[in-house]
Amino acid sequence: MSRYWSDIVHRLVPYVPGEQPALARPVKLNTNENPYPPSPRVVEAIRRELGEDGEALRRYPDPTARRLREAVAVHHDIRAEQVFVGNGSDEVLAHAFQALLKHELPILFPDITYSFYPTYARLYDVQYKTVPLDSSFAIRIDDYAQPNGGVLFPNPNAPTGHALPLAEIERLLARNTESVVVVDEAYVDFGAESAIALIDRYPNLLVVHTTSKSRSLAGMRVGFAYGHVDLIDALTRVKDSFNSYPLDRLAQVAATAAYEDGEWLRTTRERVIASRERLNAALATLGFEVVPSAANFVFARHPDYDATTLAARLREQEIFVRYFNAPRVNQHLRITVGTDDECDTLVAALGEIVGGKRV
Amino acid sequence: MSRYWSDIVHRLVPYVPGEQPALARPVKLNTNENPYPPSPRVVEAIRRELGEDGEALRRYPDPTARRLREAVAVHHDIRAEQVFVGNGSDEVLAHAFQALLKHELPILFPDITYSFYPTYARLYDVQYKTVPLDSSFAIRIDDYAQPNGGVLFPNPNAPTGHALPLAEIERLLARNTESVVVVDEAYVDFGAESAIALIDRYPNLLVVHTTSKSRSLAGMRVGFAYGHVDLIDALTRVKDSFNSYPLDRLAQVAATAAYEDGEWLRTTRERVIASRERLNAALATLGFEVVPSAANFVFARHPDYDATTLAARLREQEIFVRYFNAPRVNQHLRITVGTDDECDTLVAALGEIVGGKRV
Repeated sequence: MSRYWSDIVHRLVPYVPGEQPALARPVKLNTNENPYPPSPRVVEAIRRELGEDGEALRRYPDPTARRLREAVAVHHDIRAEQVFVGNGSDEVLAHAFQALLKHELPILFPDITYSFYPTYARLYDVQYKTVPLDSSFAIRIDDYAQPNGGVLFPNPNAPTGHALPLAEIERLLARNTESVVVVDEAYVDFGAESAIALIDRYPNLLVVHTTSKSRSLAGMRVGFAYGHVDLIDALTRVKDSFNSYPLDRLAQVAATAAYEDGEWLRTTRERVIASRERLNAALATLGFEVVPSAANFVFARHPDYDATTLAARLREQEIFVRYFNAPRVNQHLRITVGTDDECDTLVAALGEIVGGKRV
Repeated sequence: MSRYWSDIVHRLVPYVPGEQPALARPVKLNTNENPYPPSPRVVEAIRRELGEDGEALRRYPDPTARRLREAVAVHHDIRAEQVFVGNGSDEVLAHAFQALLKHELPILFPDITYSFYPTYARLYDVQYKTVPLDSSFAIRIDDYAQPNGGVLFPNPNAPTGHALPLAEIERLLARNTESVVVVDEAYVDFGAESAIALIDRYPNLLVVHTTSKSRSLAGMRVGFAYGHVDLIDALTRVKDSFNSYPLDRLAQVAATAAYEDGEWLRTTRERVIASRERLNAALATLGFEVVPSAANFVFARHPDYDATTLAARLREQEIFVRYFNAPRVNQHLRITVGTDDECDTLVAALGEIVGGKRV
């Protein structure tokens, strides 16, 4: 607290990201990172940009990230003008709150969802109302049929992993035409249908993506928004009033190379999905109830064991999972799908704790 | 324009950065980049972090950039808790507007200064009042002795290159105790005294630095703020409500290595300063009036030639300088100090245009 702070600083409730433990070899299943290194083309592209002596680094990057936006547009079969790029999808979402979600009416998002949303709302003084998930942790589109300043949800949702079919999202868009609908698809590549297919038909649809999950580039901070040029224009105006050059040179070439390697994406995605199904089965054998997941994590609870106790016991063994101390989900663990070896280590440790059958 | 835009988007006047021409070998003296590549240690550090297969890139970076803040703190002989790090000093300044400069009273900054300041003010709805430089383009501290919500200026100032002595800044701090004073020292390493020496004595002083100029890392987007822990805390609260991970892994190790190579900084700085003095002399020979500069650029006008014409004629030869279409300075060119070869090319081209003596 300080008299030099602006009013807004006093009101903020900053987001707390998952722990990044400074350990040699933790089993780190707490922040939904991809267990596999990025495409070899990414490494090559960074080495090429770096060159012998790093000469390129002395020059500002392209403030419009044109080549990257073009590569991403080709990948998604849209136009570069429909692509906004930011310093991670968190920055993209922040700009969307300021540029597109701040209106008279409150915005709507699920009661159980990405916990950064209420933080953004406070930062930009955006009114919001949470809409409860149903008892199976699914978003019910009909519940969003009410006056609003915008609608925002992840698909698949976090931390549940539950995915909405595209037809449901279109049903929402058909009736919600007066405000922007943001579909945050950070995890879409692991099993959900992308709403990018709808951006040409709905001028109020904004789809947000990241390279942090399916493309193994959490360390490089690159995220996107796709939508009608008017929505992209709003984000660009805010970005150009905030930071002309949000993406450094190495991040731009890294993400471009990642989007040019479709084969790597397909292979890696399949491996993660196979490991997820294997992990689901093992957890079920131990007596866990697992929410059906279309993401690279699973959301699970054990009817006989307290979730905080489970997380703490795992942590003693340098196994990190995510726990949310929030209503309705405070008996769940969110577990990132690691390699099969990492999942086996986790399942073995949980087996010891719950005394169930080992896989 | 779109009905989906928030009110703020309609009001924005985005900053327009200097052109990044897509040419093979432009003489690029328009965005104050350093003409020399970064420290070899920077390149080594990036290669080390990248490793064989880019494995590190799949993991989130340290959201607190602890190692980088520690290296910078050692360099400046302050504590890591007094250091804030952001995605370029533009992001740092944006957070400062929102966290520390938004109050009831208008903030004060010079009429001729970094043209991003009014843009930030509009983005965060911060009232401001500009204070005229004197006739020699110097900031007059006495003119800032008026009620304000904050004071902000670059030292050396941009685009003039004029530097205030530290004693003048302390004179301002001694009387301006009720609001934050931000000293934007992007160019300080080229010849001005840093106000970092004063942060322990003035809890309302925030000093902003960048790695883009003196450390040749414009392409990597790393900036800093130094000040009392309460000011750093405000910036951190905003940052953690905006984007947990603003600096990617390669940017963090690059900037850390840059701060660990003090010898590189000294050598490069001296080369740039020597080239600046040489360029000043050559421009004077051609009849230009040059503002005394403590930065890595010079601000010059020719009494007989229109500045827009000069800039356009240079551009035809793929020589880029910066021109500002603003009152009092629309007959000046801001010319970045390049290598001696680049400066010679510029001077020769100007010599042809103004018909003066070649150097």
